[in-house]
Parts: sequence; structure tokens; C-alpha cells
Amino acid sequence: MDRAAFETLDRDDPLRPVRERFLLPPDIVYLDGNSLGALPSLVVQRLSRTIRDEWGRGLIRSWNDADWVGAPQRVAARIAPLIGADADEVAVCDSTTVDLFKLVVAAARLRPDRPAIVTVEDDFPTDRYVVDGVADLLGLQVRNVTRADLGAAIDDDVAAVVASHVDYRSGYRHDAAALTATAERSGALLVWDLSHSTGAAPVDLHSWRADLAVGCTYKYLNGGPGSPAYLYVSRRLLDAGALSPIAGWFGHAEPFAFDDRYAAAGTAQRFLAGTPPILSTLALEAALEVWEGVPLDAVHHKARALTGRFIELADDHLAPLGAAVVTPRDPEARGAHVSLRHDGGYPVMRALIGRGVIGDFRPPDLLRFGFAPLTTRYVDVWDAVETLRQVLEGGAWRGDHRSQPGVP
Amino acid sequence: MDRAAFETLDRDDPLRPVRERFLLPPDIVYLDGNSLGALPSLVVQRLSRTIRDEWGRGLIRSWNDADWVGAPQRVAARIAPLIGADADEVAVCDSTTVDLFKLVVAAARLRPDRPAIVTVEDDFPTDRYVVDGVADLLGLQVRNVTRADLGAAIDDDVAAVVASHVDYRSGYRHDAAALTATAERSGALLVWDLSHSTGAAPVDLHSWRADLAVGCTYKYLNGGPGSPAYLYVSRRLLDAGALSPIAGWFGHAEPFAFDDRYAAAGTAQRFLAGTPPILSTLALEAALEVWEGVPLDAVHHKARALTGRFIELADDHLAPLGAAVVTPRDPEARGAHVSLRHDGGYPVMRALIGRGVIGDFRPPDLLRFGFAPLTTRYVDVWDAVETLRQVLEGGAWRGDHRSQPGVP
Repeated sequence: MDRAAFETLDRDDPLRPVRERFLLPPDIVYLDGNSLGALPSLVVQRLSRTIRDEWGRGLIRSWNDADWVGAPQRVAARIAPLIGADADEVAVCDSTTVDLFKLVVAAARLRPDRPAIVTVEDDFPTDRYVVDGVADLLGLQVRNVTRADLGAAIDDDVAAVVASHVDYRSGYRHDAAALTATAERSGALLVWDLSHSTGAAPVDLHSWRADLAVGCTYKYLNGGPGSPAYLYVSRRLLDAGALSPIAGWFGHAEPFAFDDRYAAAGTAQRFLAGTPPILSTLALEAALEVWEGVPLDAVHHKARALTGRFIELADDHLAPLGAAVVTPRDPEARGAHVSLRHDGGYPVMRALIGRGVIGDFRPPDLLRFGFAPLTTRYVDVWDAVETLRQVLEGGAWRGDHRSQPGVP
Repeated sequence: MDRAAFETLDRDDPLRPVRERFLLPPDIVYLDGNSLGALPSLVVQRLSRTIRDEWGRGLIRSWNDADWVGAPQRVAARIAPLIGADADEVAVCDSTTVDLFKLVVAAARLRPDRPAIVTVEDDFPTDRYVVDGVADLLGLQVRNVTRADLGAAIDDDVAAVVASHVDYRSGYRHDAAALTATAERSGALLVWDLSHSTGAAPVDLHSWRADLAVGCTYKYLNGGPGSPAYLYVSRRLLDAGALSPIAGWFGHAEPFAFDDRYAAAGTAQRFLAGTPPILSTLALEAALEVWEGVPLDAVHHKARALTGRFIELADDHLAPLGAAVVTPRDPEARGAHVSLRHDGGYPVMRALIGRGVIGDFRPPDLLRFGFAPLTTRYVDVWDAVETLRQVLEGGAWRGDHRSQPGVP
């Protein structure tokens, strides 16, 4: 294989025209769309209109005239098909952290006689902080277990399980239907964190028989930095009385009746809390228009192909230089990012970024590369490996002793 | 008094140049800045730069290069002087609803042996929904009392009190120092909702000896629809271990260390939860730059003057037509909006809006007019009363039987 072969793959890529819906700088290889997705051009237009016309000129009237009020539901309806859910099971609001809090509390209250919540050791820290916080609040115990021990940890004492569908560091992807079935057999409610899978790896909540899920929209869904999260509550659990602990007016069945008493909406909209962040929500709505007419099969295929090629090239050219692939080689067991372990750590990533290839670093020693299927070219895979090879061979990174600044 | 007298007041208004920092449509009288503040021109520039340059070109690098990471703290530092607090006692994040939830739970946990929370009957519904939700979650009782009974309801059984500094309908403003002292005497923690006062009426949390507060930024602070809220936790309570029940990575002492265990930040930043909504937060930051060099005394003086003139004219010209002022006549007992009770209700407001005077309607029968001091002219007061007089005399609104659509 040489670079020309990757150019051919790009030429034959059915998703190639989709990349033109984004404004990407011409001079970089962007492999961090799993952390912050690229800017869709529709967002620029939409926010300009929203700010100048709707806010500036329409002012308060735009809640109705521009249907700001309906924005959370419209966006939920765009996310639902990406995760295999019905629109009324999805709510778009708040952050992933806040939404996870709501769902874990809701799950614990639906299983009041069960004293334990299970988390996975390698999952993203905020998910575990949230669960520790809920356990502290409600007097529950946390079982924080390795992925290998997960199935065995889910017994009749477990109210809720929180698990990331795709691991934010290794890229490991669960067999979601199997783990959901394990939880269901013991009567526990599993909350999936889909942040690192939706828009890149197959997510099909109905076919998994999933109960609860949350996810982030600023990664593969390109909603912009800190864009609102989404949550999913199955129709089963809505009917069983799943409720948000944060009872806010936007989750009320009739928000603008200004009723004295809270009455939860019949749909997942009951998990909305305060006034929606309209600028962020409408940016996300515009970003999701990018998915119109995009076949999800092609997206998942491309994610497998990009990560597969990267792993092959890394094995051939980077492993001998000390950068070993830690991501599963089975495409059914990984998402759309690949991590390499290298002792050089952050200085290596900094040197690579200095040469225009943007991945990120995750402590203690992982170089992480995301292959967002809508915006990544096959030649990006080639160029990233080639550039990293030069960086590792050159060794100039050894002189860089700066520590990593804050990066989400 | 005639219109010319109001033109003179505008000519002599020291805040007149501040209005030019906003993009307001030329053809309307906007008296709903207490619901959605006008658009500051700096916001247009800031968001255009943030979206195209920082997100579009900088991509993930902008978390550091454009200091997105520092945005919540920078904005907190701009809000602190507007509410009489230190910057490290303020956090900017999430919605008012979510922030109120965090503070009520934090308060209840700091007073674990006290079974009751007190709310005020006329306060904004979401505040009461939140408290009912917390009480249900933690097994507490709610005492929902009239304002007249408030002092007596705060006894040794009360863990927390939630009260709106300025009533969203009547405009009634509490003697905040007095009520804070009442709560302090009984050992209860009072959570102030400042949504309808900050930026319009004097707020001085330190001099009140306030413990906790939340507030909205899309009203008098012009942050845009659904912009992030702020919360205040006194240094005393931070030192006493006040904690958010939603333990998220942005509230961690070292968010990017990806520690296994949650360790709360030393400042009010510990009440941050998930990744901040950067577009909304930076819009708010730009909006707050409007306040640079604006003397708060002049702002409060103008709010008193505008509402006072409006009340005088309404008494003279509108009361005889059935529109009676319900807002306190004592300027120390009101905020910056005035409500008139009229049987015609929503159709009257609709007719008024049709003539270019934008106020809003609050069920069951209140016509509400906000006099945001930075953007309202004295002639707006005259023109609003004159136009409403014409509407009421004309009576065409009687034929309008449409019900009110959803409006925040």
C-alpha cells in the first residue's frame, strides 16, 4: 500500500461529498473529531440568522415566531434515528454529566430495594464521579469493577449499571445487546453512555432492548464546544414512571400554564429542566441537518475501514518505534478511534500537532486518534502514520518537558 | 407632563450612550427586557469569531489557545461585582433550574437534622417544582406559604428557604437583608433567586450576609435566550463543605488529571458539572462587557425613575380604563418591572404588541412591562402608556379570542 491507494479509497468513498458540508482548515489532518467535531457550514448560517434576526430583531417574540420553544423536541427527533429510538423517548438538554445524574437517580428510584450501582473502572471519570455523588446522596453502594468482572457484578442487589458503550481511551466497544440482556436478567437498569459511539459505531437502542442512555453531541455529531447532551428513556420506563429528580418547568406537561404543581410531560421531554440554551440547541439542530440522506451503514463501514487501515499501518510502521496499538483489532469490538501507547506521551503528541496532525493525548501514555467518518479522509490515515513515524524517528520531542495543559 | 418632558429626561440620562451598545429594532418600544434582554453588538462579533475562527479553524486546540477552559471563571468574575460577591464564590453554568436544584440539595445536606424547606406561594413555578422534587428525593417536607407568613414559617425545623428577590409577576421586592437575617437567626439557609433583580435592582450579597443565590442571565444581563445561569455560594459555606450533588469533572479540583476520585474545587467552581456550553458562555461574556464603566447606582436610579413614571402615568391614564397597577408604589419594594391587572388579559397585550409596544402577559390577568435600565428610554414609558390607552379605549381586542401560545 502507498499513499496513492488511499487516494483511490477517497475517490471511491460514497461519503466524500459529505465532507464538503464542513468548514475544515485546509492545512491540517484533523483526527480529533471524537473530542470536538468539525464545524458544519450550516451552523454558521443558522447562528448568524438566530442571533441577528431572531434574537436581535424578533426578541421575545421569537420564542413563538421562530419556534424556539419547539427546538428541544425538533433536535430530539433528529437524534432518535441515529440511536435507534423513537423521538418521544429522547430529550436534548443540559450536559452529559447532568443528564447522567438524572438517569442514575431515576433508575435507583425505580429499583428502591436494591442497594448497589455498578460502574466500570476504565470509564470516563465524570461518569464515575456522578455515580459516586448519587450513591452518597441516596445512601447506596458503588461497585466499581473491571470490564472483565462486569457481568458477574450485576446481581439482584444492583439497581443501576453505568457503562460506556465505547471506552474513551482504548476504543473498546461493548457487545451492547449482550450486556443489556445481562442487566435485564438480574432486573438492573443499565444506563449506556453513548458519547463515543453515536455517529460513528452502530447504536440501536430498541434492538438492544435498552432502558436508559445518555450521549454527547459535540463529538461525532458536530454540535460545537459544550453543545447540549441527549438522553434516552425507553417507552417502557416512561410508562413505569421514570422521573427526573430535577423537576423544571420545561419538563412540565404544560410549561406555560404556570401551574402550581409539577405534572411531568408524557414523553422523555419530562427530563428537560430549565429554559433551553437556544443558541447551542439551534447550532446543534443545524449540525444534525448534515446527516440528511447519509446512510448509517456507510458511516459505520467507513469508521471500520479507517480504523482498520490505521491499525495495519501502525502495526507495520509505528510499533517498531515503540507505539503499540491498544485498541481492539476486532472491528466489532471497537469504535471509531484508535489509541497507541508510547512512553513519550504528551511531547510526542505535541510534536505531531506541530506538524499539522491533530490527535490528542490521554494520560498516562496514550496517543489517541479519532476517525470521524463524515470528515476524515483515507489519506489522513496515511499522512498521520507517516508524520508520526517521522516524529518518532526524529526524536526531537525528547527535549520537550512541558506538561499537558487542560484539555477536555 | 407631556412627551417633551420625557425627551428631556432621555437627553439628560447618563446611561443614554449605553443603549448604543445594543442592536435594537428602531420601530418598537421594547418593554420585555426583563424576560429576554436585547442583543449587545459585542455578542455578534464575539460569536462570529468564536464559531469561524476558534471552532472552525482552531478546533480542539481552542480549549487552550482561545482559553475556552477559563470561560466559566472569567464570566463568574464579571458577574461577581454585579451581585456584591467575590469572584470565587460565583459559578456560571447550567440553567437556573439546575443550579437551584444543586443549591437546595447542598443546603439540605448542610442542615441534615431539619426536615422542612420553605417556599413562597407566588414565586416562579419552576422554583417550587424544584423544591418539591428535592423534598421528594430526600424525604423532606415543603412549607409553601404566602409572603406574609414567610417570616413566621422559618423556624428551627427549616433547613432551607427559597425566595425570589423580586416577584416575577407583581414586581414586589423583598427587604433582602432583613429576610436573610431572619433565616440566619433560625439557622436556616436562604437561597435567593435573583433572576428578576440583578442588573436592575440593588443586589449586595455580602452586605445581606447571604448564604446562597442563583440567577438568570438572559434578562437584564442580556446573555441571549437560555444563556447559562449563575450561582453564588458564600465563602463561609464553601468552607463548611457545601457540595453539589452533581459531581462533574468541571467541578473537580483538577479536571484534566482524569483522577479516579472526585475532589471538589476549592471555590464555587466546584458547582460546575459537565463541559461548559462554550458558545452560550462566550456570548454571555461579551454581553457582560457592556457593563464596563457603567455605575450601578445610575442603573438602579434609572430603574426606579422609569418604573415610577410609568406608575404615575398608569394611575392617571390607564386605571380609569380598568388597568390597575399591582406593583408596589414604594420604589424600595419593587424591581424594574410593573404589572397592570386588566380583565382583557392576553388579547390586550396582543393588540399592544401589534402596535409595536412589546410587553408580556402573565396568567391570569397581568400585563407586565419591564424597564431594563440599559436599553429603555424615558419616551418608551410615555409611548407605552399612550399606546395602551388607545388600545383600551379602542376596544378592538375584545374580538380576539385566541389563547396564549407558549412563552417563557
